[in-house]
Amino acid sequence: MEPGIPCGKCENCRIGRYNLCPDVIFWATPPIDGSFCEYVTHPARFTYTIANHVSFEEAALVEPLSVGMYATRRARVEPGETALVLGSGTIGLVTIEALLARGITKVIAVDIVDMRLQKAKELGAFYTINPKKENVVEVIKDLTKNKGVHVVFETAGSIETTQSTVEVAKRGGRVVLVGLPSQAEFNFNIIKTIDKELDVLGIFRYANAYPGCVDLLNSGRVDLKSLITHRFPLEKAQEALLFAHEHKTESIKVVVNL
Amino acid sequence: MEPGIPCGKCENCRIGRYNLCPDVIFWATPPIDGSFCEYVTHPARFTYTIANHVSFEEAALVEPLSVGMYATRRARVEPGETALVLGSGTIGLVTIEALLARGITKVIAVDIVDMRLQKAKELGAFYTINPKKENVVEVIKDLTKNKGVHVVFETAGSIETTQSTVEVAKRGGRVVLVGLPSQAEFNFNIIKTIDKELDVLGIFRYANAYPGCVDLLNSGRVDLKSLITHRFPLEKAQEALLFAHEHKTESIKVVVNL
Amino acid sequence: MEPGIPCGKCENCRIGRYNLCPDVIFWATPPIDGSFCEYVTHPARFTYTIANHVSFEEAALVEPLSVGMYATRRARVEPGETALVLGSGTIGLVTIEALLARGITKVIAVDIVDMRLQKAKELGAFYTINPKKENVVEVIKDLTKNKGVHVVFETAGSIETTQSTVEVAKRGGRVVLVGLPSQAEFNFNIIKTIDKELDVLGIFRYANAYPGCVDLLNSGRVDLKSLITHRFPLEKAQEALLFAHEHKTESIKVVVNL
Amino acid sequence: MEPGIPCGKCENCRIGRYNLCPDVIFWATPPIDGSFCEYVTHPARFTYTIANHVSFEEAALVEPLSVGMYATRRARVEPGETALVLGSGTIGLVTIEALLARGITKVIAVDIVDMRLQKAKELGAFYTINPKKENVVEVIKDLTKNKGVHVVFETAGSIETTQSTVEVAKRGGRVVLVGLPSQAEFNFNIIKTIDKELDVLGIFRYANAYPGCVDLLNSGRVDLKSLITHRFPLEKAQEALLFAHEHKTESIKVVVNL
Repeated sequence: MEPGIPCGKCENCRIGRYNLCPDVIFWATPPIDGSFCEYVTHPARFTYTIANHVSFEEAALVEPLSVGMYATRRARVEPGETALVLGSGTIGLVTIEALLARGITKVIAVDIVDMRLQKAKELGAFYTINPKKENVVEVIKDLTKNKGVHVVFETAGSIETTQSTVEVAKRGGRVVLVGLPSQAEFNFNIIKTIDKELDVLGIFRYANAYPGCVDLLNSGRVDLKSLITHRFPLEKAQEALLFAHEHKTESIKVVVNL
Repeated sequence: MEPGIPCGKCENCRIGRYNLCPDVIFWATPPIDGSFCEYVTHPARFTYTIANHVSFEEAALVEPLSVGMYATRRARVEPGETALVLGSGTIGLVTIEALLARGITKVIAVDIVDMRLQKAKELGAFYTINPKKENVVEVIKDLTKNKGVHVVFETAGSIETTQSTVEVAKRGGRVVLVGLPSQAEFNFNIIKTIDKELDVLGIFRYANAYPGCVDLLNSGRVDLKSLITHRFPLEKAQEALLFAHEHKTESIKVVVNL
Repeated sequence: MEPGIPCGKCENCRIGRYNLCPDVIFWATPPIDGSFCEYVTHPARFTYTIANHVSFEEAALVEPLSVGMYATRRARVEPGETALVLGSGTIGLVTIEALLARGITKVIAVDIVDMRLQKAKELGAFYTINPKKENVVEVIKDLTKNKGVHVVFETAGSIETTQSTVEVAKRGGRVVLVGLPSQAEFNFNIIKTIDKELDVLGIFRYANAYPGCVDLLNSGRVDLKSLITHRFPLEKAQEALLFAHEHKTESIKVVVNL
Repeated sequence: MEPGIPCGKCENCRIGRYNLCPDVIFWATPPIDGSFCEYVTHPARFTYTIANHVSFEEAALVEPLSVGMYATRRARVEPGETALVLGSGTIGLVTIEALLARGITKVIAVDIVDMRLQKAKELGAFYTINPKKENVVEVIKDLTKNKGVHVVFETAGSIETTQSTVEVAKRGGRVVLVGLPSQAEFNFNIIKTIDKELDVLGIFRYANAYPGCVDLLNSGRVDLKSLITHRFPLEKAQEALLFAHEHKTESIKVVVNL
């Protein structure tokens, strides 16, 4: 179930960017409640069919995966390119999966938590960097012969990682901003953005991304199960939310099961 | 080694479509000889590094693979789409591999030779059709609920398959013409091309496709080895050419080894 | 008033290609009646505001203009390119206007009726060809130093002109099919389509084209008035239709006024 | 004469982005001298033919015009959109001309110098704003019914205007950074970039822009003459440079004539 229901009528809907519809109804986005319940009513056109072998908890993770799929589409990634993913939490990991699914083999993962880098590696990242141990900019210089990467995905939502994007991107590269930093404004290198002729692309949710994600899940081409580190029953949903909030570095995805 | 050396100066080179350079020097395209010899001189910028585990014969098949990679790029394929590949000879099979590498899971292969369909299946095609046994248009209708496929790749180079492309493509779909039919002109349904608002895209060799192919090969994400059905030593190169010509339905790729 | 009302919900609507919506309600397309009456009810979102100086009859011609605008958008035309427009009836002329509005200065118009070529010239075509007097393919060769044009728009809907598109397009060029030939299938040069790596693009109505057309009309940047050669009052609408049908070569656009 | 000569061989050249060639030879960019002399040697492929009625001083201004043409191409502007140009010096004015040439009618010009706004108006800007007298963000809100503009071009190179781009762009809009600010890093609203899903696009010189500019100049569709406010003979070239530097607000383009 794709959680947003756009109006289908406004200028953004009419050009196919329905994620930017100002009248979208989106589950769990105030004033719309979330869906911690057994049944909800949802338009058939925003539901998708999962294969018999796919569990509901995997299907639930199509939502984050669609962020990664959409971000990689907007980035126009191509096989042969090198991609850097800053942050290897859920969104970072699904971005890595989306890149791999699109034929990008040289995916570099960055995180300060080794457990997440371990997961990135298992999913297929060809290199991982822990900034607490290595200097990301220097490692990228080494790996790319001073050129920089074709595309950087910022999913950590930290000021430092967002600032570093323009350092590590190659000339003509793309910087994709997915993670929301805690502060609206901060120092950003505009001269490098111009001099390198970068595309700095904001990402707001997704549009037309579910069909591809569901296909990849149904065909076994992405692994969403291994992102789930903790499970709670529906009646403990509140506990699950608290747990996820308090155990950010030990958990990846906490799911609530019916 | 990418076999074409474009001039780097003409209008087509300057816009990045160097495959259309009128002054390209292309191995084995008259008046340029082929490269059935131990050593040739070639510009470093059109050579690529293969991994230690990759054999020369696999590396040789990057050439056909790059046709499939380039055709799928020009088709702007996206995960979630359904693709039909008409013809499952070498070019059909590498197109299937390129589609799978790009995250297209619903790839349908067509050929009149069951051995090739078997190979397509092994590589990951989710459905195969032998037109001698089933009606392609009808099967596609069934599989797509009368909508048609998002994109059709014609690699068989037959008049019939080329004509059928506009039948099986969905509205707004893309038809990619890779195979050269034996006849320049024949009946083509222009009304359907217009009414369905199709993109009919010709493919001439490739540009900027080798880096992605080499990456996929080096990372083990494509299987080129299994396309090789017969091998000849260099001194029997002429025999190899004759064999390939005379055993089209029993062989896929015949390679000459040093 | 943009005459088609798409569903806003189907796959094509969701990707922004609402002209391909299977459930579109389109005035004057059976089973929907036309709008030869004083008032119709139409969704506000598909109506647009015209400037005070714009007459209703000019505004009525935004409909054909939007075909030209959409065709030129789909063709991705760029200043500096040479464009050929086959057929200089209403659709040909609005395509010429759309090309000029987009900064294409080298527009070549073709028609067998001199009056239309005269109009094309007045609108800004830099060259005109009457195939009854000159050979189009030869003239294009001369004008483009044997290269061919970057983009060809077929608006005549004749078999001969449609067939000639692949002859006059340059390598890597685009062929845009707008006019519906009287016959569904006929000989088309597929080898040239492939060898020249052409994009052959069908056009079905338009999507997201009205805002640009209305802007250009409101700002006086396109001339729609001069396309109107004959006028009839509403009560003589049937006569107008007959007249237009019987005087194809002497009229361009026949309008019905309230 | 297009002043940059790229290598034609590197990765950026091969994908058609030759402006990013690391080995480009560019007149007047150290270590290459400028061309304040009667004759220079330059490759024929980077020279273009001007019409008889075009003066050399107009032709010289194809260089800045190509920046505007390239910036508007990278921004993928479409008729019907509203564009804001921050800064109406030479680059701002040629960007306005490029927008108008591409059929954008709603161009809003901003500058603190009224003389420049007057020029913008004469060239066809439909609205002008002097930030010393009006609040740009508020005026844009009024003009666009709180939506913001489809695309913003920053050509002033000031920190304040660069910061304001994300305020005035609509959701899904594009921000094009052309002017180099005096400071590399400064506060930039990343949250708005993400939340509005903006494309922030750096511009470094131009590629494949001269042919369109020369066509528009030859056909009289752009006015470069009126940008020239002062002229100096070749022997006073140094004086001309000093004059331009010292009279930024009273002059637009100072040219040196042979």
